[in-house]
Amino acid sequence: MLRVGYPATIAAEFFAAFPREVELIPLSEDLDHDVEIDVWIPDPYPARSQRIAPHLRGIKLVLSLMAGTEWIPAAVGPHVTICNARGAHNVSTAEWTLSAILATLKYFPFYVEVQQTGHWKRRFEATAHYEQISGKPHRLYPPVMLEELTAKRVLLVGHGAIGQEIERMLAPFHVELERVARTARTEPKVHPVSQLDALIPWAEVIVLILPLTPESLHLIGPRQFALMRQGTLLVNAARGAIVDTDALVDALQKGGIRAAVDVTDPEPLPVGHPLWNCPNLFLTPHIAGSTPQFAPRSIQTALDELKRYMAGEPLSNVVRPAV
Amino acid sequence: MLRVGYPATIAAEFFAAFPREVELIPLSEDLDHDVEIDVWIPDPYPARSQRIAPHLRGIKLVLSLMAGTEWIPAAVGPHVTICNARGAHNVSTAEWTLSAILATLKYFPFYVEVQQTGHWKRRFEATAHYEQISGKPHRLYPPVMLEELTAKRVLLVGHGAIGQEIERMLAPFHVELERVARTARTEPKVHPVSQLDALIPWAEVIVLILPLTPESLHLIGPRQFALMRQGTLLVNAARGAIVDTDALVDALQKGGIRAAVDVTDPEPLPVGHPLWNCPNLFLTPHIAGSTPQFAPRSIQTALDELKRYMAGEPLSNVVRPAV
Repeated sequence: MLRVGYPATIAAEFFAAFPREVELIPLSEDLDHDVEIDVWIPDPYPARSQRIAPHLRGIKLVLSLMAGTEWIPAAVGPHVTICNARGAHNVSTAEWTLSAILATLKYFPFYVEVQQTGHWKRRFEATAHYEQISGKPHRLYPPVMLEELTAKRVLLVGHGAIGQEIERMLAPFHVELERVARTARTEPKVHPVSQLDALIPWAEVIVLILPLTPESLHLIGPRQFALMRQGTLLVNAARGAIVDTDALVDALQKGGIRAAVDVTDPEPLPVGHPLWNCPNLFLTPHIAGSTPQFAPRSIQTALDELKRYMAGEPLSNVVRPAV
Repeated sequence: MLRVGYPATIAAEFFAAFPREVELIPLSEDLDHDVEIDVWIPDPYPARSQRIAPHLRGIKLVLSLMAGTEWIPAAVGPHVTICNARGAHNVSTAEWTLSAILATLKYFPFYVEVQQTGHWKRRFEATAHYEQISGKPHRLYPPVMLEELTAKRVLLVGHGAIGQEIERMLAPFHVELERVARTARTEPKVHPVSQLDALIPWAEVIVLILPLTPESLHLIGPRQFALMRQGTLLVNAARGAIVDTDALVDALQKGGIRAAVDVTDPEPLPVGHPLWNCPNLFLTPHIAGSTPQFAPRSIQTALDELKRYMAGEPLSNVVRPAV
């Protein structure tokens, strides 16, 4: 009997479709004794999973419910195969990304404030915002009060499953698109990451959607911010530490760029951290994936992988093979 | 020489491409004497245009820079042809509509508040919001903190140029779509407006994008709100008076529906109006069209129509023929 440990916090009904030859073992977040399992489905919150990891014995396979798995190798060691929930987060993360791009270009955070204060005429303040962030004092009439995504130049940094989904959602806006990833590719053309600095000055919107690895840590630092054109929108839907937070705070405070992020470094972002109050920033507290479809979709993905494992078939979503 | 009056507030450079046989006459917003013109391009702000209309003599043709022209017939009388800027606002209005739908489903107004207060843990309050608006107390783990647009049921009320553009931007989300308009059509199937009440209970998102006419005034009133399912999102990108404001306030305060509107009735919405503080409402102060591309696009559309007029060709964008 294959022993599969899963977070007790997730309702057992979500696992109803698991095969009978599997013994499902709910793991409490305050587990205080050793448990033998073959397969581990960790709690989506890394801190909770890291806490119980030392009590888990015999793990051969980790089936993460998330896309990002950067904390898992240290928690389980080198002799365990690690799979992610490739595909399960495409829709939710891509939707957040498009929503955040549009909300920023439409100045929605400002209009939420206008609604809070209840003064219609405050709309005219948006023009000053446009002049500041575009760097072009303008005397257009009627005044500019928001921007368009259509025809903008977008740089996708990362072109995995989620990046491709973002590209699909950008299609109706006829954006000019360039792509960067670890490995260069053709059809569609993907530039190698060595070309990143050369492409940054071209971009009006830069979307980070790549895994956090030693190579991508602080990929966007002081040098990259200095290369961005006035008003560039940086969107981080990946992991906070891909961006050097001090450099981000500095760039935002100088007024040269804008940003929309669902992830930060550190995370959670502590009370009083300067990032909270940076101008031209829209920040959500790592919520992009937390839709009603999260649990059913990611557990189905884990189940599909588990069935391949039990049948001795090649796994689909290995992010770190066992040594 | 054809005399074309235009708002003095718009920079003359935007009219540089107008033909030499046209005499361009800038009209000050405090015009205090009569002026003879053949063609009138009114100021985009109706109040300013209505103020000077009594001083304009000899108008045969009005070329509005806007999509909505409901105030013009009363200002110029029955013997004038009225054209709108059909097409010029498709992109900006459709983009606002998609942005507002996504921002609402992603709870962005709430997350702006979270960012203002700077407390990461407030994200968990989103779950209570989901439970309230969906009407389904849930015990999902991880907790739901936002929703998806993908696969939702969308009812488009109005299927002109902007409505079709909205449909194009919705395509990547694989929504189920139904359409209602004044005139029923096939390919794609558009239901007659008499079917509106029958379709409302089906919809999860209802988008209003039709002109304000005597028939569409208060199209959405108490009866229509009563027909909406729990959590329906009503989006108004058209004209405020298509919705009965008292009924909207009542429906929002009862917690049954949510709304995102760029237009209100009255407009501007006065300080202290109850709509400002309704729950589950995202309100922007009629800014959807005010992008940097507004002036060049709408003036080009007016110029194209003017050339047809001068050549004696049929006009393309007549919304009210002369009697």
